[in-house]
Amino acid sequence: MSEDQRFGPDRRVTLPGPLALDGGATLSPVEIGYETYGTLNAAKSNAIFITHALTGDQHIASPHPMTGKPGWWARMVGPGKPIDTDRFFVICSNVIGSCMGSSGPGSLAPDGAPFAMRFPVITIRDMVRAQALLLDHLGIDTLHAVVGGSMGGMQALSWAATFPDRVQAALVIASTARHSAQNIAFHEVGRQAIMADPNWRGGQYYADGVSPAAGLAVARMAAHITYLSESGLTEKFGRRLQAREAKTFGFDADFQVESYLRHQGLSFSDRFDANSYLYITRAMDYFDLAEEHGGMLANAFRGSKTRFCLVSFDTDWLYPTSESRNVVHALNASGAPASFVELSAPFGHDSFLLDVPALDRVVSGFLCPEC
Amino acid sequence: MSEDQRFGPDRRVTLPGPLALDGGATLSPVEIGYETYGTLNAAKSNAIFITHALTGDQHIASPHPMTGKPGWWARMVGPGKPIDTDRFFVICSNVIGSCMGSSGPGSLAPDGAPFAMRFPVITIRDMVRAQALLLDHLGIDTLHAVVGGSMGGMQALSWAATFPDRVQAALVIASTARHSAQNIAFHEVGRQAIMADPNWRGGQYYADGVSPAAGLAVARMAAHITYLSESGLTEKFGRRLQAREAKTFGFDADFQVESYLRHQGLSFSDRFDANSYLYITRAMDYFDLAEEHGGMLANAFRGSKTRFCLVSFDTDWLYPTSESRNVVHALNASGAPASFVELSAPFGHDSFLLDVPALDRVVSGFLCPEC
Repeated sequence: MSEDQRFGPDRRVTLPGPLALDGGATLSPVEIGYETYGTLNAAKSNAIFITHALTGDQHIASPHPMTGKPGWWARMVGPGKPIDTDRFFVICSNVIGSCMGSSGPGSLAPDGAPFAMRFPVITIRDMVRAQALLLDHLGIDTLHAVVGGSMGGMQALSWAATFPDRVQAALVIASTARHSAQNIAFHEVGRQAIMADPNWRGGQYYADGVSPAAGLAVARMAAHITYLSESGLTEKFGRRLQAREAKTFGFDADFQVESYLRHQGLSFSDRFDANSYLYITRAMDYFDLAEEHGGMLANAFRGSKTRFCLVSFDTDWLYPTSESRNVVHALNASGAPASFVELSAPFGHDSFLLDVPALDRVVSGFLCPEC
Repeated sequence: MSEDQRFGPDRRVTLPGPLALDGGATLSPVEIGYETYGTLNAAKSNAIFITHALTGDQHIASPHPMTGKPGWWARMVGPGKPIDTDRFFVICSNVIGSCMGSSGPGSLAPDGAPFAMRFPVITIRDMVRAQALLLDHLGIDTLHAVVGGSMGGMQALSWAATFPDRVQAALVIASTARHSAQNIAFHEVGRQAIMADPNWRGGQYYADGVSPAAGLAVARMAAHITYLSESGLTEKFGRRLQAREAKTFGFDADFQVESYLRHQGLSFSDRFDANSYLYITRAMDYFDLAEEHGGMLANAFRGSKTRFCLVSFDTDWLYPTSESRNVVHALNASGAPASFVELSAPFGHDSFLLDVPALDRVVSGFLCPEC
């Protein structure tokens, strides 16, 4: 098999459902956009499900179809890489609520018009339930592992709590078992920025293609700051000026950090649907795994045979180490096998996406202890 | 003198200037809105200038003329209070660039129309120069002290650096000698939110009174998160729902923290001018006291006879203790007398405005060691 053939094309499947959602609605049919890498073995025992973050997608290790950029975890997933596609069959599906092929606010409702804000509000657990439907479709009963960072880590935790018999191992990176008040606050700023954009029009902007790009860009800018560490920003940009010798005494992007943020905002709104941003941030804010289990996080994992590994980063102030430790304490209380490491990396929350060799070693070691 | 008479009315003065600004422009005339509390003694030696924060104003200890709320530092300033108006003559003026009586983008330009974005970009030092003009007007040569928190602390530092002979003591609370990349980034989000509001119209919104209130509210929401500590938000709001028993699976403000932030945004845009927010955040982002002194912060204070006191709060992540320590190291290097204390308070950056008895003791002790 040539290297190219290891990587699948952009795949979509329409499953009949119905998918019963936490909010009481049902989704039917359920569209799922997904990608696979590597080969499923005859015993169907080598599947790893990778769950993506808020603005991620299924294009882990193959070029993004809109931007042409390499997959978001190409450094981690591939032949001979820490998640080794010579050994594992790797699956990633776009979360429902998103905009890269799975059912979301931009999908067509039964009446033939886009759902827009008629799309039901979904939860992290709903995303996982849709992924389980995909697994059924692929004929895979049990996952060797589920792996995710950030919102992907929430899904990994939810997978283990919701389908404990289908998950042999869960690797949860830079994540949390519940959104804090500060997490919710930052997301609410983003939602208000989108909804304040007159082009949002209550979410009804699909017909003419004039989307609330400016509001979405502001939302992205605010969120992006939370993905980076203060020291990382200082090291990367400091107070350096952008392609000029002196301050202009105006409102152009004098500072490199301003220029960088503006670019982040604009390029994001080119590739992402504003309504999806509303729905997915809402799902994250609603996430509280303890609440789903009688207020006791340990109950989520009681009797579980899943192996867990939690990884945090010392400069992550979005989901700081204390949040991972909170999960580990619950796992210990529930008797589940759990390992935990706080890694030192300068990049803040985004460390899980970046060049952190220590993370590579933790990932490969956890997924394949015998390798 | 009855208590009421201690507190002055809303005062304004129009000074001829011209005021030469760091950006090269000049301002003439210079309007200044200010308040005074207490009585100037015959020797004119008991004046304390209080410098206000980004969204503050001169109404320290008397009701805000628009909201009717008590002054923003009424707990700190008054008869028998830590800044004792029985003893000191307290002055506070609205910074230029703002919107409470001092020259700013909402002021009329010589052509009779509002300046809007024709108002010159100003710096922290320009604000201080305007305050010095006010002191001249009041016939006061030397300040017993200049006192400020947050942006007020930047002005206090700039006062000591710019007019060392006029400042006997400088009390700098929860502040910094320069804006970091992260500080600039948060402000840039706010500015982009305002400028993305179609009602901003390049700043030309004064004629019809339809202002970019939605953009300004988003800017305020983003900034407000930085004023609070993560643990303070958790303690105050946690994940508690707002006047409902269960999540609504919609986009209303389900969580108390969402409702609180929305209220903060809306009430702020009722009382503050969006263009002023642009100008003042720009001045803060431009602030780098070392840069003004050959790249060496100690040079800003070389030979100074001013006594300094720096105060930081352990939960302040906007201007963390390390920023105050940076200033103290420079003061030590310059030979200036400096004391420094990090106070423990749960409220984050906003601690300087809130009930922190230890701060009261530091303030009164520094301003009146013999009291």
